[in-house]
Amino acid sequence: MRAIFAVALLVAAVSAQASDETDIRQLLSEQQAAWNRGDIPGFMAGYWDNPKLRFASGGEITYGHAETLAGYQARYQNTAQMGRLQFDVREFNQPSAEQAVVFGRWTLHRERDKPSGLFTLMLKKFPQGWRIISDHTSSAD
Amino acid sequence: MRAIFAVALLVAAVSAQASDETDIRQLLSEQQAAWNRGDIPGFMAGYWDNPKLRFASGGEITYGHAETLAGYQARYQNTAQMGRLQFDVREFNQPSAEQAVVFGRWTLHRERDKPSGLFTLMLKKFPQGWRIISDHTSSAD
Repeated sequence: MRAIFAVALLVAAVSAQASDETDIRQLLSEQQAAWNRGDIPGFMAGYWDNPKLRFASGGEITYGHAETLAGYQARYQNTAQMGRLQFDVREFNQPSAEQAVVFGRWTLHRERDKPSGLFTLMLKKFPQGWRIISDHTSSAD
Repeated sequence: MRAIFAVALLVAAVSAQASDETDIRQLLSEQQAAWNRGDIPGFMAGYWDNPKLRFASGGEITYGHAETLAGYQARYQNTAQMGRLQFDVREFNQPSAEQAVVFGRWTLHRERDKPSGLFTLMLKKFPQGWRIISDHTSSAD
């Protein structure tokens, strides 16, 4: 009986993790869809709505959901600048039931160029679902 | 008695975490010291000695300890190029007993310029101690 119970626990843990990964991939998909319809506030819904949200890009650190949104809105003023966003998740890591780290590549498909780079996201599970609590982004030269 | 036991467990967990943070800061200090004496292999001793080590910089991903070492050696061929490395840890996060995430700023103080940027390190606790298993680095423009 004890062995069966242990196996059941393990199966439950593995299933919970698989479902977390599915939920996080869904969150990133919704972010892409929002971006690709020109909806930056919708894209930002994937981020923790808190002044402690950290967004790091190149050599700059921005703290806060409102400040990060304002930064995106200043850099991308129309749908031509926004282009079509593609995320490619390369690594998914879940060190605990309530925290995950996702590493991948981002690409903006635009009329005239195709900027791309890498991201490391830290996510936390809140009662309302998974949210990005920090984002470190870098760009290809 | 049960309450005392719970408090003892909590104190033990908090102390373990404080000691992990001290150990990780020490590892980064040793990396800086190695770099600042021109010793790139010594600097690389802070990284997981494994082909799965991931080093991401700008838009490029390098896998493997030997490959990452070769990349550093190609980019920094003498102590003038290496300069003096400074790490400023900004955030320390330990989602589990065996994994930690460290975010901070790096600066290279050199004769002619002062390149800087940000890093997100994922570390894992091995029997021989903490090692960086992935590094995402970005540079200020």
